[in-house]
Amino acid sequence: MSLNVYDIIVKKRDGGVLSADEIVFLIDGYVSGRIPDYQVAAFLMAVYFQGLNSEETADLTMAMARSGKVLDFNDLGFVLDKHSTGGVGDTTTLIVLPLVAAAGGRIAKMSGRGLGHTGGTIDKLEAIPGFSTSLSVEAMEAQVKEIGLAIVGQTENLVPADKLLYALRDVTGTIESIPLIASSIMSKKIAGGAQGIVLDVKVGRGAFMKNIEEARKLAETMVALGDLVGRKVTAVLSDMDVPLSKAQGNTLEVIEAVNVLTLAETRSRRLQELSEVLAAEMIRLDSSLQPSLDFSKAYERFASMVERQGGDLAKLKLDAPFKKQVTAKADGFFADADALAVGQIVRDLGAGRKVKGDPINPNVGVLFSKDLGERVAKGEVLATVYAQSQEDLDRAVASLEEVLVVGPKPYDRPVVLDVIRGGDE
Amino acid sequence: MSLNVYDIIVKKRDGGVLSADEIVFLIDGYVSGRIPDYQVAAFLMAVYFQGLNSEETADLTMAMARSGKVLDFNDLGFVLDKHSTGGVGDTTTLIVLPLVAAAGGRIAKMSGRGLGHTGGTIDKLEAIPGFSTSLSVEAMEAQVKEIGLAIVGQTENLVPADKLLYALRDVTGTIESIPLIASSIMSKKIAGGAQGIVLDVKVGRGAFMKNIEEARKLAETMVALGDLVGRKVTAVLSDMDVPLSKAQGNTLEVIEAVNVLTLAETRSRRLQELSEVLAAEMIRLDSSLQPSLDFSKAYERFASMVERQGGDLAKLKLDAPFKKQVTAKADGFFADADALAVGQIVRDLGAGRKVKGDPINPNVGVLFSKDLGERVAKGEVLATVYAQSQEDLDRAVASLEEVLVVGPKPYDRPVVLDVIRGGDE
Repeated sequence: MSLNVYDIIVKKRDGGVLSADEIVFLIDGYVSGRIPDYQVAAFLMAVYFQGLNSEETADLTMAMARSGKVLDFNDLGFVLDKHSTGGVGDTTTLIVLPLVAAAGGRIAKMSGRGLGHTGGTIDKLEAIPGFSTSLSVEAMEAQVKEIGLAIVGQTENLVPADKLLYALRDVTGTIESIPLIASSIMSKKIAGGAQGIVLDVKVGRGAFMKNIEEARKLAETMVALGDLVGRKVTAVLSDMDVPLSKAQGNTLEVIEAVNVLTLAETRSRRLQELSEVLAAEMIRLDSSLQPSLDFSKAYERFASMVERQGGDLAKLKLDAPFKKQVTAKADGFFADADALAVGQIVRDLGAGRKVKGDPINPNVGVLFSKDLGERVAKGEVLATVYAQSQEDLDRAVASLEEVLVVGPKPYDRPVVLDVIRGGDE
Repeated sequence: MSLNVYDIIVKKRDGGVLSADEIVFLIDGYVSGRIPDYQVAAFLMAVYFQGLNSEETADLTMAMARSGKVLDFNDLGFVLDKHSTGGVGDTTTLIVLPLVAAAGGRIAKMSGRGLGHTGGTIDKLEAIPGFSTSLSVEAMEAQVKEIGLAIVGQTENLVPADKLLYALRDVTGTIESIPLIASSIMSKKIAGGAQGIVLDVKVGRGAFMKNIEEARKLAETMVALGDLVGRKVTAVLSDMDVPLSKAQGNTLEVIEAVNVLTLAETRSRRLQELSEVLAAEMIRLDSSLQPSLDFSKAYERFASMVERQGGDLAKLKLDAPFKKQVTAKADGFFADADALAVGQIVRDLGAGRKVKGDPINPNVGVLFSKDLGERVAKGEVLATVYAQSQEDLDRAVASLEEVLVVGPKPYDRPVVLDVIRGGDE
């Protein structure tokens, strides 16, 4: 029986279940250019309405993962990875990976750059003078073997199907489909060579998923997907109604990660809390690891990684010519800060990008003096804004004064909303 | 507020109601090439699932009609048109238009060619030696003014939006959407200058609409659409489970039309019945017409049209080198003949096309000796097959012997299943 796209579109349109062969035919045909984008667009919209069951989602994920190079770190044993759906002030990767490496884990992580109001780990690491995120797969593997962790930008031709599909979904109103989001995320993790994956699914105003029901559905889909494709997957649902940590902006966030790793008094406790949960869940996925969190050893691993990748932590310093403080107008609690609004303010200061390829500036941002929920006294400093021009500074301060809320009740949404584990647990 | 396609796709995807501006933006953008087909494909699939309400369907129809030249026969007064959704043995146009012209009606009709198992009026007319279906709009108008009717092929750039949309729907699984079908049909009728339109919506095995509920929905949608865009529209639901008339094949069908117009003894009564209903409904749409059917005057009009368009009825003659009869194997009734199967047999004899542009042969076909439902005696001739080769003949006869059913119960589905009138009726 010969396959054709039209029949596949109509089958999905009518609620049918696609075979693995049909899914591979579609993905390979699209990547090779045999299947035109208008047919794939119609297919994606049909999927938006009819969904994909677990097997179809797994088949799609594997077809996508295999559309390009698939990394294989067999020499390293059980390789771990972590993925965040994107947030504001989310520096967990720089804390979690060293903690897991300190426990004996091996993490070979490919990270991305920030876009819109959300940051990216590669941008953050590049705030460290000299730090190189372009490592060959061999160099990456050697580094992981030695110190347990490496974080690099994506250089190989991994998952070309995802690049094509994501770009098409982005302009055809088919982004918001749980199975399509799940297969996009998971195909990249699988192509990156991970055997155990912890997913940080953000929920709230600053997140892609605005409500917990949708986020839980996505998390459950990806955990079930892991079981079907032979990967251990745990999903953590975490709050992104407010920025995760005190620091927003690339240099500020690396400094904040160091603050947590060194347990500095000023560190963000919310950032620490989520980092500990994520690290513990990663460690749990590999039974050969020590089930404990050693911050001092973790900091050593972090410093080793920076050094091996050419960075100089001694030179890490915020160099912003303009800065100003925002103070509390009344006694009370740090009651709210819309993560989306804060993310946009920080992006507009120059820390982020409106479109791919925009240049960014690591030396700008917003540093809260308090974690969300902490007590604040009238006149006390709530946040400091760092900018590259007086104009940027004034605009950011004016916006922040609207966004940062001091009130009679503390912000009380927990950082970790739920943990969803796969398999036999 | 500036419009953009992405928002339009998402609005429809989420069940929103589009404004006329949004619909015009989409259609004009697509026809001009500013909007790529992958976005339109996603939009069409969203429409497949979410539908369009009456106003949206009307706005889409008018946006499509206005995408190219719109004919204007103001000099002719109230211009009538007829459209069939396509069938087998459907020669009604050649009977209905002369009947309406004889009653004083003006019909300027653009017709199409056959495709697949369904025939096309232009192919039929071209079976008349010398007949030209390429008339300028001015010549067409002059002819209608004088004798009341003209039938031409579509030469002008009418409804380019429909050509683009139909081709895209055809490969993206979005053909089967009532509002999209309705707007496709109606936009062409409106661009063709019609003020009053009778739609023959075929139902059954040989029709595009297989069941009466879907057909009725389409008919009601188009009638309501007529009210919204200021056109008088009546829809007739008619049976296409079996071929409409005794004759299938281009020359045979023109001869059959002449048989009905001249009330020849051998004429197909089912063809006559539907033609009368369609003609009466067309006449009803224009209150200035005489509410009667004059066959002899109608035949004169038909002959005048053929003459004016260069045809020579005297030379109309079936010239098939190979022919063979199929006889009844038992006493009984002509109980069934799957219209789709018969249409395919006739197409394979060379009367129709598998793909656009295929050459056709007017001198082949199948002529039933009986109308469906008539009594048949064992050994009596049921049908005669006309072919251009012995091989074609044998294949067609073998297939027909399977398809033509003589049984104890007559075929008893009525030709006319329902009539749906618009406006104040």
